Amino acid sequence: MARWEPNTRERLVRAAVELFAEQGYEATTVNEIAERAGGLTKTTFFRHFTDKREVLFAGQEIHNRIMSEAIAEAPESATPLEMIGLALDGLASSFTEDRRDIGRRLRTVIASSAELRERSASKRAALSAATAQALRARGVSELVADLAAELGARAFYGAFDRWTSSADARTLVEYAHEVFGELKTAMSSLK
Amino acid sequence: MARWEPNTRERLVRAAVELFAEQGYEATTVNEIAERAGGLTKTTFFRHFTDKREVLFAGQEIHNRIMSEAIAEAPESATPLEMIGLALDGLASSFTEDRRDIGRRLRTVIASSAELRERSASKRAALSAATAQALRARGVSELVADLAAELGARAFYGAFDRWTSSADARTLVEYAHEVFGELKTAMSSLK
Repeated sequence: MARWEPNTRERLVRAAVELFAEQGYEATTVNEIAERAGGLTKTTFFRHFTDKREVLFAGQEIHNRIMSEAIAEAPESATPLEMIGLALDGLASSFTEDRRDIGRRLRTVIASSAELRERSASKRAALSAATAQALRARGVSELVADLAAELGARAFYGAFDRWTSSADARTLVEYAHEVFGELKTAMSSLK
Repeated sequence: MARWEPNTRERLVRAAVELFAEQGYEATTVNEIAERAGGLTKTTFFRHFTDKREVLFAGQEIHNRIMSEAIAEAPESATPLEMIGLALDGLASSFTEDRRDIGRRLRTVIASSAELRERSASKRAALSAATAQALRARGVSELVADLAAELGARAFYGAFDRWTSSADARTLVEYAHEVFGELKTAMSSLK
């Protein structure tokens, strides 16, 4: 009864990313993904995802919530950039080391398809929008919230790129600190 | 011989936006768009656009080029933000008053469909990426280029929203100056 095992969702994501990397996104079917994930069925797949594309963007809602909640729970005295720093820590620390390799293959798969690049841009925009909304709920003005949220999204994606491109022992949290620090420096020099 | 008239492309865009606003994006066919554009055929439509979705994003390549060229041609002494200001002027001044009403309807149509919102996020990301690339070609460092480009995209879209939401005599260039000024102020207060 493989389909009742735990981590079904995670196994489907891994199977999909593997197959997309091996034989291409277009050529891969939902049946193949379910089979590769340990003899699951299409029906099980569709209990978890609406279609084969959404497997790759499964984390969207969770990531938005992690960023938003960290901002909501930041100390009263926190500035917008301090709130972004806390949100980045929360999001980056949810990525354990075993996600690094899958993240690397995911980047390659997304880069290979215009449809996936579009969907990816939309995920990034949603993260930025959710972050900005959480900042506004903390009394931050609209434009400042948008800018700070954009810095946060840029820091996260920049850190993710560096983390998945390297094979050192540094965590995503460490990369996020690095990129966020560089962004703040770049911003203060911008004229 | 209506199909050989000038402005075929522009008429197809207007017809598409009208029909999408009247009866919905999903329900509208390429045949209907061609017919509404003055008795054109589907074949004529496909000489100009790959599909009905792309009608709404027809300006993408041109907008990217206007921003990039303005940056390439900016004075040697221009700072990154001054280059963005020149690029914004170039892009905003390409929108004449007759585009305001179509822009307003376009926003409503895009907001109505997840597919169109995704495509729109991708267009915005492409504008920001093209702008950042043009800044890097002027010797601006990667992160500074990304930040400045993002400010430019935010200023353009913010100005476009204000311009298409109002009925005053102000031009898109004036709105772009206003939003860009507010963004620079917000950035300098960001901590």
